[in-house]
Amino acid sequence: MAMSFHFHPLAASRVHFSPLPFAAAAGAPSPSSSVAIAAHHQHGRRRFSAIVATAAAASAATTEFDFKAYMGERAVAVNRALDAALHDAMRYALLAGGKRVRPALCLAACAVVGGPEPWAMPAAAAVEMVHTMSLVHDDLPCMDDDDLRRGKPTCHVVYGEPIAVLAGDALLSLSFHHMASVGSYPPDVDPEKHPARVVRAIGELARCIGSEGLVAGQVVDLEMTGTSETVPLERLEYIHLHKTAALLEASVVIGAIIGGGTDEQIERLRKYARSIGLLFQVVDDILDVTKSSEELGKTAGKDLASDKTTYPKLLGLEKSREFAEELLSDAVEQLACFDKEKAAPLLHLANYIAHRQN
Amino acid sequence: MAMSFHFHPLAASRVHFSPLPFAAAAGAPSPSSSVAIAAHHQHGRRRFSAIVATAAAASAATTEFDFKAYMGERAVAVNRALDAALHDAMRYALLAGGKRVRPALCLAACAVVGGPEPWAMPAAAAVEMVHTMSLVHDDLPCMDDDDLRRGKPTCHVVYGEPIAVLAGDALLSLSFHHMASVGSYPPDVDPEKHPARVVRAIGELARCIGSEGLVAGQVVDLEMTGTSETVPLERLEYIHLHKTAALLEASVVIGAIIGGGTDEQIERLRKYARSIGLLFQVVDDILDVTKSSEELGKTAGKDLASDKTTYPKLLGLEKSREFAEELLSDAVEQLACFDKEKAAPLLHLANYIAHRQN
Repeated sequence: MAMSFHFHPLAASRVHFSPLPFAAAAGAPSPSSSVAIAAHHQHGRRRFSAIVATAAAASAATTEFDFKAYMGERAVAVNRALDAALHDAMRYALLAGGKRVRPALCLAACAVVGGPEPWAMPAAAAVEMVHTMSLVHDDLPCMDDDDLRRGKPTCHVVYGEPIAVLAGDALLSLSFHHMASVGSYPPDVDPEKHPARVVRAIGELARCIGSEGLVAGQVVDLEMTGTSETVPLERLEYIHLHKTAALLEASVVIGAIIGGGTDEQIERLRKYARSIGLLFQVVDDILDVTKSSEELGKTAGKDLASDKTTYPKLLGLEKSREFAEELLSDAVEQLACFDKEKAAPLLHLANYIAHRQN
Repeated sequence: MAMSFHFHPLAASRVHFSPLPFAAAAGAPSPSSSVAIAAHHQHGRRRFSAIVATAAAASAATTEFDFKAYMGERAVAVNRALDAALHDAMRYALLAGGKRVRPALCLAACAVVGGPEPWAMPAAAAVEMVHTMSLVHDDLPCMDDDDLRRGKPTCHVVYGEPIAVLAGDALLSLSFHHMASVGSYPPDVDPEKHPARVVRAIGELARCIGSEGLVAGQVVDLEMTGTSETVPLERLEYIHLHKTAALLEASVVIGAIIGGGTDEQIERLRKYARSIGLLFQVVDDILDVTKSSEELGKTAGKDLASDKTTYPKLLGLEKSREFAEELLSDAVEQLACFDKEKAAPLLHLANYIAHRQN
């Protein structure tokens, strides 16, 4: 019976698809103490095993058979719990039917600078993990307290608050792990050839999350929510630029970095991304006013109900739509210097963001 | 008046030490609408400004002077809130007097393989950020619900639950940002020379957090807490290997990677780290039984009170101490092949972990 506590690079998926160490021990009982084997494998030395096995035997001496059975039952239960809780929570949140706008932007940005799209796939997955993590944490009872997301109950509603916090943490670390691991890349590409690109891309991703990105936006957003006072437009913009635009910008820029874009190309694409980032939020605000919950897959009119400041509230619906068109044309302008065919996905993504109905 | 929404690499510290964009706007009122300037700077185009300025003027038309004053007051208040909340929460948690064992291990591992210690300083800071983040989230009311940490009220007690969640997220992303940024490294070292080492180190760091590390340990720990049943030793070990040993292992391994250690050296140091990782927890359990809250700087006897399974409970105090000595000698054995002088810090760190009194 092979039993190991080693930290394997693929353990995240292994934990999910194969029995946990203690479950394996329970499933294949052995005459020798599984505790001793664990200690032996962990430390590679017999004398640890001896101490631990002696102690375990002593504590289980009166009811040895029951102890093992008990261990087996509990192991299976914990295995199921871990599986159902953490991994399913991550999977649930990740696969709840998002539109995958950020990954698409990342792949399209890689392609527009001439990079092979598969190179950007780990980064594309990573930005969606970060996005999902921010949704899971923002929806928490102590934050926005949202029950519905993408038409489904939110993560903490299904799995509880502790697991939702931890699933967010795990998704955040998984995003960096995914980008940094050779194993994430398709076999025909060699990310180790371009480690400097990977480091730079990881820096961009990390930057858009913390106190210059998602988290900063959420902090100011929390400050503003619940106050009946009107939020000035510039603070609204601060929130959106951090909560929404920062990650959209990172998605595009990371794709361009991985694809080997020049600094000039990267900066053009950064401008493109900033415009569509703000555009994304203006359109979100418009949809919240004009669409039903069913059409949106989330609670509609929530911004109005919670007295949240939105673009339509500050500018009116017509001016908001005009503003959206301006942002769209500004984004499109940045694509002019790229090959028309290669820039088509980014062009259409901008149009999609501007004119989407949910 | 320069006003910018650009995402500056140093914005995290700038936000803390200088006024926020909207605070700056409020502090230096200008005849032109600050909203228009923001839009102009953001998009570099006049026609956005025109739309936004018109709308802002319309909404503020009746009470223009009051509106500006109001904006100023609110901006200052929000600035203070952001500062006091997010950054102070991060700073509070980070600088609450930890023993810095993990950073010390990281630096010592870099040195033992012959690397210049300053190269590992960003990584050393990063592992402490990750450690602090895990403490902040584990202490949350929905998790272990701990009020006291390192002798001080925990982060959420001081700043509230939402800020504690977000401060943890920000610390986690900051750790990766710090490792990936050229600016983190001393001017006399060039991390860009060794981007492959940085990528590999980032992968190690990310791996020890999620579903193979801290988070996995916390999930199983939560499962176990509150049950009056005895936790089998192997599951206790699973928790500790994930909650404690994984990050200690990463700290050492990352230092060795950045320092340019060979694969063989790195694997030896990994074994050293695993032994002291488990040792760390065994000693923690022993101290919880034998010391007062005042001596520990955290609630003593909590494990017993909460029916938490510990090594002393499972093995008895004497066997636990014996086990600790075995782990120590195993760790020390791994250092035999390194230069004695260079290995001295790692040797003394192992002794410190084994014989510390809090």
